[in-house]
Amino acid sequence: MAPVALETPTHINGASTPVSISKKAHAFDPATQHLPDIDPSKLTIKLSHELATVPAPETLTFGTIHTDHMLLLTFSPEAGWSAPSIQPYGPMSIDPMASCIQYATNIFEGMKAYMGADGRPRLFRPDLNMARMKRSADRLALPPFNEQALLELIKKLIMVEKRWIPSAPGCSLYIRPTMFGTRIGFGVTPSTSATLLIILSPSGPYFPGVVRPISLYAESRVRRAWPGGTGGHKLALNYAPTLRPTREASQQGYDQILWLFGEDDHLGEVGQMNAFVVLKRDDGSLDVITPPLDGTILPGVTRHSVLDLTRAHSPENAIPGLPADLVLHVQERYIPIAQLVEYSETGTLAEVFGVGTAAVLVPINRIGYGEEGKEIKIEGGANGFGPIARAVREELMAIQEARRPSIWSVPCDEE
Amino acid sequence: MAPVALETPTHINGASTPVSISKKAHAFDPATQHLPDIDPSKLTIKLSHELATVPAPETLTFGTIHTDHMLLLTFSPEAGWSAPSIQPYGPMSIDPMASCIQYATNIFEGMKAYMGADGRPRLFRPDLNMARMKRSADRLALPPFNEQALLELIKKLIMVEKRWIPSAPGCSLYIRPTMFGTRIGFGVTPSTSATLLIILSPSGPYFPGVVRPISLYAESRVRRAWPGGTGGHKLALNYAPTLRPTREASQQGYDQILWLFGEDDHLGEVGQMNAFVVLKRDDGSLDVITPPLDGTILPGVTRHSVLDLTRAHSPENAIPGLPADLVLHVQERYIPIAQLVEYSETGTLAEVFGVGTAAVLVPINRIGYGEEGKEIKIEGGANGFGPIARAVREELMAIQEARRPSIWSVPCDEE
Repeated sequence: MAPVALETPTHINGASTPVSISKKAHAFDPATQHLPDIDPSKLTIKLSHELATVPAPETLTFGTIHTDHMLLLTFSPEAGWSAPSIQPYGPMSIDPMASCIQYATNIFEGMKAYMGADGRPRLFRPDLNMARMKRSADRLALPPFNEQALLELIKKLIMVEKRWIPSAPGCSLYIRPTMFGTRIGFGVTPSTSATLLIILSPSGPYFPGVVRPISLYAESRVRRAWPGGTGGHKLALNYAPTLRPTREASQQGYDQILWLFGEDDHLGEVGQMNAFVVLKRDDGSLDVITPPLDGTILPGVTRHSVLDLTRAHSPENAIPGLPADLVLHVQERYIPIAQLVEYSETGTLAEVFGVGTAAVLVPINRIGYGEEGKEIKIEGGANGFGPIARAVREELMAIQEARRPSIWSVPCDEE
Repeated sequence: MAPVALETPTHINGASTPVSISKKAHAFDPATQHLPDIDPSKLTIKLSHELATVPAPETLTFGTIHTDHMLLLTFSPEAGWSAPSIQPYGPMSIDPMASCIQYATNIFEGMKAYMGADGRPRLFRPDLNMARMKRSADRLALPPFNEQALLELIKKLIMVEKRWIPSAPGCSLYIRPTMFGTRIGFGVTPSTSATLLIILSPSGPYFPGVVRPISLYAESRVRRAWPGGTGGHKLALNYAPTLRPTREASQQGYDQILWLFGEDDHLGEVGQMNAFVVLKRDDGSLDVITPPLDGTILPGVTRHSVLDLTRAHSPENAIPGLPADLVLHVQERYIPIAQLVEYSETGTLAEVFGVGTAAVLVPINRIGYGEEGKEIKIEGGANGFGPIARAVREELMAIQEARRPSIWSVPCDEE
């Protein structure tokens, strides 16, 4: 199919059109403009003539294929947000001088649609993703948008593509809202125009094969994020710098990186996931700890949900699979890597796991640190899961798949 | 014109082609592969049928227009680097799931071609740009390339487009080598395919209008870069996070940001330039200081050249316009903002200026800091230039425009 034109191709050449894009862009501040916002009532749907065969769930990996259609919106400083369009998936036409190519003004979200046990397509806490995406856009000076309107459009796209939602366990329809600046010019200035896409990708497990624990290398030379930086936002630019260190960790036999920060080398994220640590106390209660949101940690939807579930655990409201009288001391605090080593050596360390939309919850069984091949080893039960990891993961998935009723699970087939 | 196809549009849908791009990509490490490198002898040139009118130099701003042609190369894990092509400038076809859109695997360089006083198109120390671009590619796990071969191609493109080189003072043909990952898929893994483009943009002054000093706001809440981060590489992703803080500084009446870092809030970069500070000593000699390359500072070609020129200044090798017996103490060291304030208050502070390829050298006359509207004011001579800024800028431009012979100025019309 022909590429979708995202920009009117007005490549300004010649003295006859001495338009200074740079100057115009500099004066523009979307927050102070009153331009048309996203309007779901203007949605047009153009279905593909050729629909692809939906792959068997057991062949699915993470994020390698897409559905037949995508949702497209564009923003211009003159007209605001365009009428939304559901149209056949296809390549885009982008100017080589576009902001998204030159200056990385690209943001995204990760969400999942599940086919509920009730036969209704469902999203998991999508309001949290929409709010985060709005903050991401603001951080990169991209145009603002109405997040409820965008969510409505995502639901409509899911309903159009619902035959793509895999119903096998561990499978889902991964949703990738993506927004990027399309302003043309080399001036380092906010992108006054943008494109917003929703892409759907039927996906299997994030880590291929059976559910298994993963290994980490604790990285203290390269830093993923820092206070005053952008690690607390979901920006494309947080990911590129992790590729080479992760490849090096992989060459040393580790699956992902445990990102450390600060003079005390405290725990940050785990690959692309938020980190959780469980410690045993003498009285049989447990500490459930995750690093605080200090600007270096992504405020993950799954992180938020794990905190909510574990904080609510009580005799009246127990997480299934955990003793009702088990006391959980839930904390957001720093854990220096040296302290984690000490917890391991003293037998206090019970579990380490990573959580995120793509992977849900993955146990960690091995953490390499330092330069002498030292390792923390963490024992797990079946498939490497400790009791907290297992129970929390099951509870999350039960809610996501609407096997357990919850206001967190939002059906796509109603407004 | 039709967009250039950068990727064979093999959107893998359906169980019939269960290709796991993610797995394949993960095992790939370009450094260990023996794939075809860039080969200038394979260059094909397809000239545009319609050539644009070259604009009058006085209408030029920075980076808003482009020439008729661009140079294009693609890299695939199967075939290595493609035959290079000079072809009409035009939009590109990019998959919405491409690495450059999703994960900001984008790098670039900034160079300039000048029409030499000898009538030959010339580049300024292009070997430094090529070496830096190679390091940038390596940092983002993008494919390696032969930098001499790329430089040869840039020279050929300049020769094709030489009518676009403005010969007016302060104007030049800005060169933007751009490379970005085109791997398709949501797995966070190195981009095994890439596109490399050379774009040319006839440009006037970086800051519009007459050459004038600019003002800065010293920013300590948002941090541009940090040790262990990517601030020492020329990556697209270093720029997007600066857009909103710069817009806010602009709303307060400042042109650019003075980026601070560390507990002592020491000086980093100046907008998109390297910072220089000149201090007076009692004996009439001067300190010329720039922040050290600790990973938070871009190793600028102009920075490098200013250090070279000022370090070489001596009675035998004086910078024209400066007294031959003037002693310059050139240092790469940290200057906390509080120290800069003190230098200002004690009358020691002589000059502050920013240097970079796009702007060459720009004096700074005002630095806002803190939250109470405090400002450092710096007196300049004509147009706000101090003696060091004026002499160094003139010497740089004399070399760039081949008015003064130098091995730094490299003609494009020979191998």
